[in-house]
Amino acid sequence: MGEFELISRYFHAPFANFPGAERRIETGIGDDCAVLAPLSGRLVISTDTCVSGVHFPVDASAEMVAARSLGSSVSDLAAMGAEPVGFTLALTLPIINEDWLQGFGSRLFESALAWKIPLIGGDTTKGPLAVTLTVFGRVQDHCLYRHGASPGEDVWVSGALGDAAAALSLLGRPHASLTPLERQLYQRYESPQPRIKLGRELQGIATAAIDISDGLVADLSHICSASNCGALIEEDEIPLSSALLAAFSKEDALGFALQGGDDYELCFTAPQSARELIQSLSADVALSRIGSLRRESGVALRRHGEEVKLAPRGGYDHFKENSVS
Amino acid sequence: MGEFELISRYFHAPFANFPGAERRIETGIGDDCAVLAPLSGRLVISTDTCVSGVHFPVDASAEMVAARSLGSSVSDLAAMGAEPVGFTLALTLPIINEDWLQGFGSRLFESALAWKIPLIGGDTTKGPLAVTLTVFGRVQDHCLYRHGASPGEDVWVSGALGDAAAALSLLGRPHASLTPLERQLYQRYESPQPRIKLGRELQGIATAAIDISDGLVADLSHICSASNCGALIEEDEIPLSSALLAAFSKEDALGFALQGGDDYELCFTAPQSARELIQSLSADVALSRIGSLRRESGVALRRHGEEVKLAPRGGYDHFKENSVS
Repeated sequence: MGEFELISRYFHAPFANFPGAERRIETGIGDDCAVLAPLSGRLVISTDTCVSGVHFPVDASAEMVAARSLGSSVSDLAAMGAEPVGFTLALTLPIINEDWLQGFGSRLFESALAWKIPLIGGDTTKGPLAVTLTVFGRVQDHCLYRHGASPGEDVWVSGALGDAAAALSLLGRPHASLTPLERQLYQRYESPQPRIKLGRELQGIATAAIDISDGLVADLSHICSASNCGALIEEDEIPLSSALLAAFSKEDALGFALQGGDDYELCFTAPQSARELIQSLSADVALSRIGSLRRESGVALRRHGEEVKLAPRGGYDHFKENSVS
Repeated sequence: MGEFELISRYFHAPFANFPGAERRIETGIGDDCAVLAPLSGRLVISTDTCVSGVHFPVDASAEMVAARSLGSSVSDLAAMGAEPVGFTLALTLPIINEDWLQGFGSRLFESALAWKIPLIGGDTTKGPLAVTLTVFGRVQDHCLYRHGASPGEDVWVSGALGDAAAALSLLGRPHASLTPLERQLYQRYESPQPRIKLGRELQGIATAAIDISDGLVADLSHICSASNCGALIEEDEIPLSSALLAAFSKEDALGFALQGGDDYELCFTAPQSARELIQSLSADVALSRIGSLRRESGVALRRHGEEVKLAPRGGYDHFKENSVS
């Protein structure tokens, strides 16, 4: 099977399935470039690579690779307050394995349909398994940047934190041995749910936002650095799922929530005057006010009335121990 | 060195060096997404991966990897008649080698400056060496598609064909052993020159266009299929460089020109009435009229008065012999 056949067999989903895509995308796969129709508002763009053995286990299912790659990329659009427009797929494969491609392609399109983001272009190459996605979104009015937050504002997060990191800690174990609770956590790791609707609703309300890919402390630190302030978060306000608390000790659960990544929830800041408005948002995910911003730099945690400075570990740093010079 | 330090050390070039970029790009590297200002016209997008050992030799210099990756990607913009707007870089590296990064980064920016295309976003990951670039361009009026050509129209190509493929055939030999002529060919392979100016000038003149990445026959076949016609090309009109003809037999030279790829010249079609206009274009590359389109499908070559059907080999098919099912 050649590259062209591969693309048309596994990666062709008619734009008619995506509302608005036929109007917005003049040309998809099949020419030298994809062509977007003139667009009102700003186009936002993010590119991310997932490498086998680094971003997902070497024995990860094709479905998981698809769901995690697209979910984490679309999450960057959500963090900007953007509406998904389309994405390109650069897929590097060691061999053509039709079962793998079938699983990858069908899960990719299932997710793409759910998030209303059509595939508009791509490249397939031979090499060690890796997926690079570039996602495009549109922001009509205000982008949610990392900068823009001020001391005195509240810090919020969506959903529950730590589940994905907890699941990662279970990855060595065979799937069949997992309890139903552990499987629930695993689902959070395997299928991140980008908070697209929430991001769009936060336009004009949140002063800064980021998606939690590297862990709450690391990602909140990015907001703090970009906004030139610090944060104090309340241990008791950090949202932990009942599955996480049932499967792990409170101490471990908090560790996953603070320093573990891969949740793809949103962390955002807003003035105190916006509390009621934020609680009334219709986005179908719980929102928790976990602390506030202050002048003093760095991220600190208040536990049992005491402040603990949290080191911004910088999340997962791929090259930490591999420098040759 | 962490990912953030790596990006800021090797991949940060101020937008002020790129004319118009400060107006067009509201946010580059450093937030969840890059942000493009509202843009008049259409945005065109292309994504391509270059894998070590597949798209470039495992011992390729960092400079060559940078020049070939960006050149071949920007060539897709040229083939659409687009003006470069920006690109994202997804770089996968096995280790941090500062010499390599220095060479790659400086050559990347040298090329980016020459082609007026700023880096607007990216991702660095650990894994087997690969470079995925997504390039963005703007087309104010007419895109140059592969479809749109008609029987009776002329087929044109820019520059000389076959040099890059000829150079590829020399790759086994140590660089020091190459003659000056062979080095000239090698330069064409190593540093493709996307025909940006020509592509833009052909807007509204050419009826179809493609860049020659897989070889003249394969790429002209794409125009023919998309435009539902065939082509007859004249052997004597195929432009061959004096370096190619000096280093190889005429027969080999023609083989490289017809079936070899990597030249990144443009192949385009236009009505006969546009001949004078095309010859008067200011793009600083020679243009050759090499044949014409006809109803009969497929690409044929006229040599010594006889017609020879040329098989559309489909260029370089990465997966030809690696299917597992």
